Amino acid sequence: MNNKLIKEDETLEDLQLKGLSIIQKKDGFRFGVDAVLLANFANVKKGDYVIDLCSGTGIVPFILAGKTQGEKIIGLEIQEEMVEMAKRSVEINNLENRVDFIQGDLKDISMLKNFSRADIITVNPPYKLFNSGIVNPEDKMAIARHEILCTLEDVIIAARTLLKDNKRMFMVHRPDRLADIITLMRKHKIEPKRIQMVYPNTKKPPNIVLIEGQRDGGAFLKWEEPLFVYNDNGGYTEQIDRIYGRCK
Amino acid sequence: MNNKLIKEDETLEDLQLKGLSIIQKKDGFRFGVDAVLLANFANVKKGDYVIDLCSGTGIVPFILAGKTQGEKIIGLEIQEEMVEMAKRSVEINNLENRVDFIQGDLKDISMLKNFSRADIITVNPPYKLFNSGIVNPEDKMAIARHEILCTLEDVIIAARTLLKDNKRMFMVHRPDRLADIITLMRKHKIEPKRIQMVYPNTKKPPNIVLIEGQRDGGAFLKWEEPLFVYNDNGGYTEQIDRIYGRCK
Repeated sequence: MNNKLIKEDETLEDLQLKGLSIIQKKDGFRFGVDAVLLANFANVKKGDYVIDLCSGTGIVPFILAGKTQGEKIIGLEIQEEMVEMAKRSVEINNLENRVDFIQGDLKDISMLKNFSRADIITVNPPYKLFNSGIVNPEDKMAIARHEILCTLEDVIIAARTLLKDNKRMFMVHRPDRLADIITLMRKHKIEPKRIQMVYPNTKKPPNIVLIEGQRDGGAFLKWEEPLFVYNDNGGYTEQIDRIYGRCK
Repeated sequence: MNNKLIKEDETLEDLQLKGLSIIQKKDGFRFGVDAVLLANFANVKKGDYVIDLCSGTGIVPFILAGKTQGEKIIGLEIQEEMVEMAKRSVEINNLENRVDFIQGDLKDISMLKNFSRADIITVNPPYKLFNSGIVNPEDKMAIARHEILCTLEDVIIAARTLLKDNKRMFMVHRPDRLADIITLMRKHKIEPKRIQMVYPNTKKPPNIVLIEGQRDGGAFLKWEEPLFVYNDNGGYTEQIDRIYGRCK
């Protein structure tokens, strides 16, 4: 491990996945269950070229690098500081041949057209509408959480632009935005094909939704079994243990 | 009980709800858990005027009459024979002052405009697309199950036409049509406001969705806790017992 790659205000988090680690800001956005569930939900096959939007620290590309045989995984991220940090995580993990990060604004369609088109798009976008209680729009946490620099529609347009014909995007989001997600996907001809609702436990409303859409796909929506994060005893469920690789 | 109101090819089913019963065809469409869940999901308040579309045997109006203080509950049904049968169920239940059935085609907008506008629309529409394996389009079971005489869009347009401003519709449907439901509701300015997914048990994909929409409502989608029909032992869950009034 090359610890001189890690700055004072950063920590190195062990992903407990094939020896991979990721650099995160001590006081910044830290990856959570959403990113892990998204990486698990995305159906990445051997040889796939993957682009992860709103990539942040790069957590989704690193999990995909560990879990799948995707050939090339690119993270697109607008914040230069995050890209620089994610590139150091690439170095730490010796993944220079498979994972890379590019600084860019996904609203810049002409920039997107310079990319090779992808087999898979993954995205864990900012969840909250711009108007919902922003304190400081310069704040990195706010940028990761609120639609300040891009909206849900921007994300879907970018996915459509970057995907090969009939290929698929995988998104994690909040259930309260599902009507918006479905409406905007259809508006931009990405057909919703598969949904999984994630519930904290069997007694609470869902707080995460995983959705797969196909560029120019035909209409048929498949639903997965519900995913529960905690069991009745407050521990993680076997479903979650399996996803995190802690098989019983 | 006035048994001369029941024909040879019919049976009288006890709803186990305030002594109510309903006439059904022996070989016809018989009510199932969908109708019961819809009637439970619909938020009918004292004094409400309710119109139930695709009313069939009238099961939803009868459950609502038993469970709520809705003042007037009208079932609209296109098949004359079903309306005649449902009217006999009204008589058997002595509900002439609260429940009535009208024969009509919900695609006939000028006919709909003769109705007083409703506080509540409930609908358990045909689930399947017309092209999905119809044998005989004259068949009453086929009409109840497939979009032969009305499509999902017809139902949503009828609901919009019949509802008072800002009032709500409640629908039960299949999860694989949820993208269509949301898209069509928004197209006709009925905003999806609340969804509950119904799962056979905690390990299977959902097979029923309950959705509430508000005429000209603002965008905010609330999700309910998941509803499970069977527990791990194969018996009904407490959630279902509560809905059926079999409280433990």
